[in-house]
Amino acid sequence: MSVESFSTKSRIASPGEGIGLDELQLAARNHGLPLEAMRYDVTPAGLHYVLVHYDIPYVEPAIWELTVAGCVERPLTLGLSALQAMPAQTVRVTLECAGNGRATLTPRPVSQPWFVEAVGSADWTGVPLASVLEQAGVSSDAVSVVFTGLDHGVERGVEQDYQRGMALADALADDVVLAYRMNDSELPPQHGFPVRLVAPGWYGMAHVKWLKSIELIDHEFDGFQNSVAYRMRTEPGETGEAVSRIEPRALIVPPGFPDFMSRIRFVRPGRVVLAGRAWSGWAPVDRVDISTDDGATWTPAILEESPHRWAWRRFTAEWDAQPGEHVLTARAFDSSGRIQPEVAAWNRGGFANNSTQKVAVVVTDG
Amino acid sequence: MSVESFSTKSRIASPGEGIGLDELQLAARNHGLPLEAMRYDVTPAGLHYVLVHYDIPYVEPAIWELTVAGCVERPLTLGLSALQAMPAQTVRVTLECAGNGRATLTPRPVSQPWFVEAVGSADWTGVPLASVLEQAGVSSDAVSVVFTGLDHGVERGVEQDYQRGMALADALADDVVLAYRMNDSELPPQHGFPVRLVAPGWYGMAHVKWLKSIELIDHEFDGFQNSVAYRMRTEPGETGEAVSRIEPRALIVPPGFPDFMSRIRFVRPGRVVLAGRAWSGWAPVDRVDISTDDGATWTPAILEESPHRWAWRRFTAEWDAQPGEHVLTARAFDSSGRIQPEVAAWNRGGFANNSTQKVAVVVTDG
Repeated sequence: MSVESFSTKSRIASPGEGIGLDELQLAARNHGLPLEAMRYDVTPAGLHYVLVHYDIPYVEPAIWELTVAGCVERPLTLGLSALQAMPAQTVRVTLECAGNGRATLTPRPVSQPWFVEAVGSADWTGVPLASVLEQAGVSSDAVSVVFTGLDHGVERGVEQDYQRGMALADALADDVVLAYRMNDSELPPQHGFPVRLVAPGWYGMAHVKWLKSIELIDHEFDGFQNSVAYRMRTEPGETGEAVSRIEPRALIVPPGFPDFMSRIRFVRPGRVVLAGRAWSGWAPVDRVDISTDDGATWTPAILEESPHRWAWRRFTAEWDAQPGEHVLTARAFDSSGRIQPEVAAWNRGGFANNSTQKVAVVVTDG
Repeated sequence: MSVESFSTKSRIASPGEGIGLDELQLAARNHGLPLEAMRYDVTPAGLHYVLVHYDIPYVEPAIWELTVAGCVERPLTLGLSALQAMPAQTVRVTLECAGNGRATLTPRPVSQPWFVEAVGSADWTGVPLASVLEQAGVSSDAVSVVFTGLDHGVERGVEQDYQRGMALADALADDVVLAYRMNDSELPPQHGFPVRLVAPGWYGMAHVKWLKSIELIDHEFDGFQNSVAYRMRTEPGETGEAVSRIEPRALIVPPGFPDFMSRIRFVRPGRVVLAGRAWSGWAPVDRVDISTDDGATWTPAILEESPHRWAWRRFTAEWDAQPGEHVLTARAFDSSGRIQPEVAAWNRGGFANNSTQKVAVVVTDG
């Protein structure tokens, strides 16, 4: 009896294959942001998306320790109170799962099946990672930083603690924190209690939860989550580009009210203020267009200012809703020149897919 | 353009039909309890199950009002501070969705597709409903109490505010509260902020969230959620029995660690303490049996005492895990004589299904 022989391989669904019970098991465990909750600048507890690869580990905060080792001059072991005694920083961050958008891809990669709801914004408070690394003294041969969580499981036959590497320069960037508070409360268990990494701008897989160790190494990290999972491949066996920063995306809060089962939206005719949120991990969003005719014509939305570089921006647009069926959609532009496409390029992992949202709306006769 | 023509009808999936994108949309919005979180007596925020029929309404607490009207001597309008000024009561309640267990039924009713995770336990603090009704003065002709929420949508062609009726005697029962705190914090939006009904022992559909009105009527309530939805029917058109109290159920915390995709569990050989939770809305659970051979043989688990009548009880059992494949299962008994069946009777809504859980475990060689 070995874990390899019972572990599920990576797989693409057959044409027309419905969502499997394996995918549904993940959807039932993990959870997305109900889109109406985008009305909150900061996502309330329990509405922020959660993706947990294995189980949520139970951690006793009194005995929790974080080790900092490897290519450092002074290896450290920090308890929670030691970490909390260091100068803290709070950063508002929009976090998105790298697999957001996977459920409607054709063909569909078999994994956690998100539509577009794997997102949330929170205020994360913690110690700048740079401060901890400075205390440890980074050796001149350090190249990468490896973050290891207390979550343990098997993936495609490989038993592992969840572990991600990050280039040293990225790890030392401003606003990267070892967070121990979320929205001014202690971290909920599912968000990494007692301490997680928050690396603004990066997709969720980089924000290692339930941190137990930080190791500096003298080469690029080639562990499972960096070199096997979270690569953008179109053919099996390719090396593929690493999944990294969040592609630009705009999401509209579905207006009106829904049908329970289809989630089609019903809107009364007349003036409607459409609102939504847009973000990018590459550069600030500087324009959002909105369309009420499925992308045939576009109008610039009003984009609200925000002092929070790493958080979504609110946008609004007026719509004179006339009876009939309509498809609402929006697209985000960022100041790096990236434009959200109607259909993003497909890859076998279903990663970084920022195809535009489609909101089916029926405007009633009265 | 009318809501009727765009609303989805009730439907049973065809044999072999995979989970549809409509079902997945509900699974992505709503969320279950990751079973490892049963380790907590009280479910932390964000891990408790949530089922929202329409959208989560946004409520300004300063202008929120609750009306109490109908067959009463003194109709009331209560603001939040007035309600909070009344003597409060806290009750620990295990809440379960009436549709828990639906996803694996054959044939499968098409609706929110839960496996077994639509459950959670919380401390609800609020005003006893009986106190509010006493203040209003219940007229002698009152028969039912109708609770209306601020959530609005369409279901099987019927546009509605979410609304449930309850017999007056049930509404006046001890421990029924108008709750404004959950786990000693204000209610999260998704759990009914600012005020919801909590009716211990009843399936979730009775615990109306985002309450706006309470109306006493002189007849049995025949609204949609009582007379159309939430009935146990085996054939269309039957009246069907009303869904009411929670059937007994025991759930084991899956031991060991999971495979990401299949969620199969891996356990090291040797002595394992299995733990879980059991509850019933009819009467206290007084026995739990556990089986490590898929129900071929059963052993009584150790059932922990609990002062909380309406909350789940913890159980444990030792297991000498030998290498190989095993299926763990448990069954709950309550003091009303109800016994959790291996396969509960099917109905078209997939309601009140308390078939036993099956946990597939691979015990490794070392």
